[in-house]
Amino acid sequence: MTKTPGSIMRAEINEAPARFAAMVQRDLTSALNPLSLDKVRAIYSVARGSSDAAANILSYEIMARLRLPMTSLPPSVFSLGNGVAMEGTLGLILSQSGASSDLVQACRGIAENGGQTLLITNSAASPASALAQATIDIGAGPELAIPATKSVVATIAAGMAFLARLDASYRPACEMAAQAMLAMTTRTIPNKAALEAALSEAGSVFVIGRGCGYGAAQEMALKLKETAAIHAEAYSASEVLHGPLQLASNPLTVLILDTGENRVQDSLNTAETRLRGVGARVFRISPADFGVTDVSPAGAAAILLAALYPVVHDVTLQLGLNPDTPENLAKITDTV
Amino acid sequence: MTKTPGSIMRAEINEAPARFAAMVQRDLTSALNPLSLDKVRAIYSVARGSSDAAANILSYEIMARLRLPMTSLPPSVFSLGNGVAMEGTLGLILSQSGASSDLVQACRGIAENGGQTLLITNSAASPASALAQATIDIGAGPELAIPATKSVVATIAAGMAFLARLDASYRPACEMAAQAMLAMTTRTIPNKAALEAALSEAGSVFVIGRGCGYGAAQEMALKLKETAAIHAEAYSASEVLHGPLQLASNPLTVLILDTGENRVQDSLNTAETRLRGVGARVFRISPADFGVTDVSPAGAAAILLAALYPVVHDVTLQLGLNPDTPENLAKITDTV
Repeated sequence: MTKTPGSIMRAEINEAPARFAAMVQRDLTSALNPLSLDKVRAIYSVARGSSDAAANILSYEIMARLRLPMTSLPPSVFSLGNGVAMEGTLGLILSQSGASSDLVQACRGIAENGGQTLLITNSAASPASALAQATIDIGAGPELAIPATKSVVATIAAGMAFLARLDASYRPACEMAAQAMLAMTTRTIPNKAALEAALSEAGSVFVIGRGCGYGAAQEMALKLKETAAIHAEAYSASEVLHGPLQLASNPLTVLILDTGENRVQDSLNTAETRLRGVGARVFRISPADFGVTDVSPAGAAAILLAALYPVVHDVTLQLGLNPDTPENLAKITDTV
Repeated sequence: MTKTPGSIMRAEINEAPARFAAMVQRDLTSALNPLSLDKVRAIYSVARGSSDAAANILSYEIMARLRLPMTSLPPSVFSLGNGVAMEGTLGLILSQSGASSDLVQACRGIAENGGQTLLITNSAASPASALAQATIDIGAGPELAIPATKSVVATIAAGMAFLARLDASYRPACEMAAQAMLAMTTRTIPNKAALEAALSEAGSVFVIGRGCGYGAAQEMALKLKETAAIHAEAYSASEVLHGPLQLASNPLTVLILDTGENRVQDSLNTAETRLRGVGARVFRISPADFGVTDVSPAGAAAILLAALYPVVHDVTLQLGLNPDTPENLAKITDTV
């Protein structure tokens, strides 16, 4: 059966809120049972692409709540190198397919070096799952479009549910995020047409966030590249005022992802003012645009992504491309 | 006195090899004396911009040699947040000026949370230095051009000398890197004119590396943005074959930074083949182009940067801009 271009991605975007809401409220007691989480003094994420962006979103929320460092380890430490000491740490491997060789090797390498391993995946029957000590199946269902959408927000939800298992006081944040995500499904962003027009004609795009919004910016920039072939790059609001600002000597479109968190407002405001001052065309989106307030930063990041995936989809169509099947890409990229 | 545009940056680029060679061979015993390095089970770097790229280069070398995880912690953990547990860890703060508020707060926050602090800086009399437990002064001398060059390679050298202090078997690698860096000062890259022409007219540039070459790619991409206002973005050879490859649907110029390390060759070769296959214009540079072989990956990364800084400088001039003073930038950006 022939499909309308973008219809597969569109259908999966439409599923995203429900997948997020179901996952973020799940009780992970039995899934996490094989782990001794009280012995963890540091978390290392290992992931690529959209999963790495999800890990970055989660790291700010987990560090703020648990006060344990959560940082990103390059998979090559275990696939090309001989590994590093992991005693007392949790290796959090995020892989939608659970099949990339380097992430499978990370599961093995972390355990061999004394760390515990937890896999967050959309494929519980996968090579990585067979090796990981514990697995959270995000249950997003088959994802057929090459650009991942519902599995990304479900991965964020899984990390939030993991955090709620470690810190019971976070449980209400999960429930509020679920409700907010479900409530905003019928809304679109206020300036959608203007943003799409700007992106469609943009040579260079910066997607900017801070804290959990920075990981959302990474995912949004990656999606704009991989789906719409737009050169979008993510920056933290704190970094963009260093060297990258110079790029605004040329026409520059800027999308600021604002989680609404109080402590990042000064930073985002400063970046917005400076970027406007040097002539960039700036858009700023926050959960408040969808009537959502009081959602935790990671939940806000997931909500921003769910609201912006339709923009990526529609811009791609406007550019005459098929969002379902970017010409140069395959669903699983096997990297060693 | 009026200066020819770019003459300040040019003079500082010319100083870079000697600054690197002096720093990489220094004995850091007394500088590191205040630290108990045998108690360190993980290293966390805290840095921004070029210093963060230098930290990334060093992380691969340090992880491969010491088998301790070395990852990047966002400064905001200590400037906007309440910090994370740092017992048993070394916080490695890299800051050329030692004056950015968020890095000064990191020095304080890491110590308050039980970590040791080591500052690598070009300004030993700075607020960060007053707080850090130990300081390595890279001694690069005043850097007046806004784009940092000699201080970046000297920062890499400082990290290498730090590694040699922890692992005496690395000392010969430091000496070889110093000799190789000094030997290549009179050479220029083989295809310099073609590379400069391609960069001058490029809309989008990917700078690609793997391992230590990835950090060098980050620094090179940042320099092309901040100095020449070219939208260059760094990717690991392993990541670029995921979503970012799609950007090659448009004209794309690719610069591959090859450290010459055996274990990254397959990955770089695959990326080069795929990128050429989708129509990108690809340049690949390695230390062998300057007659340099048998240099450690971090040393190779520094050599690649020293060889490519003149390219950034010259492309900037060709584009009619002044490399010394990019219009939108200041030397110290104070971020909170």
